[in-house]
Amino acid sequence: MIKVEEAEAIIQAQARNYGVEVVPLEQALGRVLAIDLKADRDLPPFNRVAMDGIAIKYEAFKQGTRTFHINATQAAGDKPVEIYTLDACNEIMTGAALPTTVDTVIRYEDLEIKNGTATILTDEIKRGQNIHQQGKDKQAGDVVAPANKLIDAALIGVAASVGATELRVKTLPKVVVISTGDELVAIQDSPLPYQIRKSNTYTIQAALQKYKIEAELLHIPDDRQSIKQQLQKCLQKYDVIILSGGISMGKFDYVPEVLEDLEVKKLFHKVQQRPGKPFWFGKHANGVLVFALPGNPASTFMCLHRYFMPWLQKSIGLPEAKVYAALSIDFVFEAPLQYFLQVSLSINPKGQLIATPLAGNGSGDFANLVEANAFLELPAEKSNFKQGEVYRVWPFKPLV
Amino acid sequence: MIKVEEAEAIIQAQARNYGVEVVPLEQALGRVLAIDLKADRDLPPFNRVAMDGIAIKYEAFKQGTRTFHINATQAAGDKPVEIYTLDACNEIMTGAALPTTVDTVIRYEDLEIKNGTATILTDEIKRGQNIHQQGKDKQAGDVVAPANKLIDAALIGVAASVGATELRVKTLPKVVVISTGDELVAIQDSPLPYQIRKSNTYTIQAALQKYKIEAELLHIPDDRQSIKQQLQKCLQKYDVIILSGGISMGKFDYVPEVLEDLEVKKLFHKVQQRPGKPFWFGKHANGVLVFALPGNPASTFMCLHRYFMPWLQKSIGLPEAKVYAALSIDFVFEAPLQYFLQVSLSINPKGQLIATPLAGNGSGDFANLVEANAFLELPAEKSNFKQGEVYRVWPFKPLV
Repeated sequence: MIKVEEAEAIIQAQARNYGVEVVPLEQALGRVLAIDLKADRDLPPFNRVAMDGIAIKYEAFKQGTRTFHINATQAAGDKPVEIYTLDACNEIMTGAALPTTVDTVIRYEDLEIKNGTATILTDEIKRGQNIHQQGKDKQAGDVVAPANKLIDAALIGVAASVGATELRVKTLPKVVVISTGDELVAIQDSPLPYQIRKSNTYTIQAALQKYKIEAELLHIPDDRQSIKQQLQKCLQKYDVIILSGGISMGKFDYVPEVLEDLEVKKLFHKVQQRPGKPFWFGKHANGVLVFALPGNPASTFMCLHRYFMPWLQKSIGLPEAKVYAALSIDFVFEAPLQYFLQVSLSINPKGQLIATPLAGNGSGDFANLVEANAFLELPAEKSNFKQGEVYRVWPFKPLV
Repeated sequence: MIKVEEAEAIIQAQARNYGVEVVPLEQALGRVLAIDLKADRDLPPFNRVAMDGIAIKYEAFKQGTRTFHINATQAAGDKPVEIYTLDACNEIMTGAALPTTVDTVIRYEDLEIKNGTATILTDEIKRGQNIHQQGKDKQAGDVVAPANKLIDAALIGVAASVGATELRVKTLPKVVVISTGDELVAIQDSPLPYQIRKSNTYTIQAALQKYKIEAELLHIPDDRQSIKQQLQKCLQKYDVIILSGGISMGKFDYVPEVLEDLEVKKLFHKVQQRPGKPFWFGKHANGVLVFALPGNPASTFMCLHRYFMPWLQKSIGLPEAKVYAALSIDFVFEAPLQYFLQVSLSINPKGQLIATPLAGNGSGDFANLVEANAFLELPAEKSNFKQGEVYRVWPFKPLV
């Protein structure tokens, strides 16, 4: 049995780059950018008018001119109309490209316009005002979004603005999620009194959609030969196998021995934690990784978020996000195991993350995870945890 | 011009329930549960064996029996095999249903098994140990997930376990996102020097996918007649119209007057904020809401997250999540406007949310939003904001 930190280090050492692929922009949301995205032109690409009003030469204002003949009206998207005399202006709209022969914009609020002339009503004019200068945000060739960024709505907008109709993104590992256990029946079935419905694989499949992984599902009966045949196929077809169940000390827990038969090298079996103690992790010579998670739903869920997700994040290039929260009440856990307490994580008006334990029935209580949104990780070395103490926390739902 | 809090109240008062629909479980992720989901049977549905080992009658142990004849071996999913004598046990596996005639499970670690008998090696046995009692987590008919919950991976698993092949979810409003502005060209086009590519509508469309809204996109040229015709159609076809641009003081900003022509009642125009001051909001007699957002990308983005998203959350029944963070440095903003500062939000090892301002160029700098993950809302009444002061913050990316 190894410590949580050792298990984590062994798994993180197996993080692997699965390569790069190109996807259309409309399918890129939630993927990870594989290369630096660069501006194809300056941002803004021209001196962009930032207020509706008139554009003048500042020199004229400085020399005392207050009334300007309106030379042209220029909307956003119009070709700039140049001005060649000091007493002329363009009426000009937000988003328009400033003509090169003017340098200052005065907003409508500071003007009176009638009979084809505009009169400035204020003396507070600065050269270059109300203009968003070309290249001020980014210059052509500058990185607008660095590699290894999760592609979110803001990045989609920036990609559109630099003309990226498709994006190079990190390839996702091919994942199969396998349930074992002869007590399991399909969702639509009416279970016999000693049977239950499959749920873990659906949970895992749903959780992986956060990173756009479309995991395939497979069920294998608790039969040594079936397990061996199916796993052998999976070792050829996928990059990662996530198993749920079949790894305890039971007589029908064939998974560890079959995996070793199939030359999946055990990197560890059993972690000093609750839930999830029987967790098995290994690697085939061809590189396929096997996360064999305990079949108990809360154990499966915890191991997925504590071990698999950080491995995935590292593999696709995302930075590690460490989150800490303060315990809302005193809590006691006696066993010499790292305890993953189901908590409801909230943010108080002081901006502090508070972890409130949910009343529950230990590792078996999966129903609680509907109300909880994180696991608080309580170190194995301690038994008494005090209100206000801060520990690392593993959110499994967005906080907002 | 109204205050941010007034604009918010006016919009939130227009929150509306768009009804309920049924979706298959595999399409329910990210939707909002419309009814209480109940357990169709107890959870666990039987006294569930929680360790691999043997099942005995505690009475026998109490009377001094330590060696038991193995009556049967019972795997998870096997029909329970009853025991009728005190000196017998079942070898039994995790997940199996405990026979009614036994009441206690002893794990393999505390046993010696040979020649068809099991001998208990410890005196520390409690009646009922290693059994997850039927109905302990939930009883048949109990609510396993309440209405108005966002359907996440944990809820998918719980739904599977209670046999919900489909779920009743909140119907989403039908949304169209409209760009205006003759300076805009398509992503794949090479803009002329005074043109830019469309980006706002893609950003909004991507942001709405968080709640599974598949918004349609439409572009309308800056032409009064086109705007009127297109908006008239949209008022028949959609529940919500989000417009980007065309609402400033410019001569070609026809949107507000056309909307009023079409009997969309203005509920406000202009909010005391930066960015996003020209924001226009109204409602048609048929109930359609119009969010007319300023066309500047950072303004659009802010208004979407500060106003539209909370409206949507309320409409589909999600609770309001208030988030607060402490400013990392002193910051000055002089104008008497509520300022939405682009920040990078992080969680320090004390569990405190820290908002670090990004260096930027004011409301025009959309490229910054790739690095930022939230807006810190600085009250209009103040100008000097000090390090460590806590304000409300609007995250627009997941923190982990």
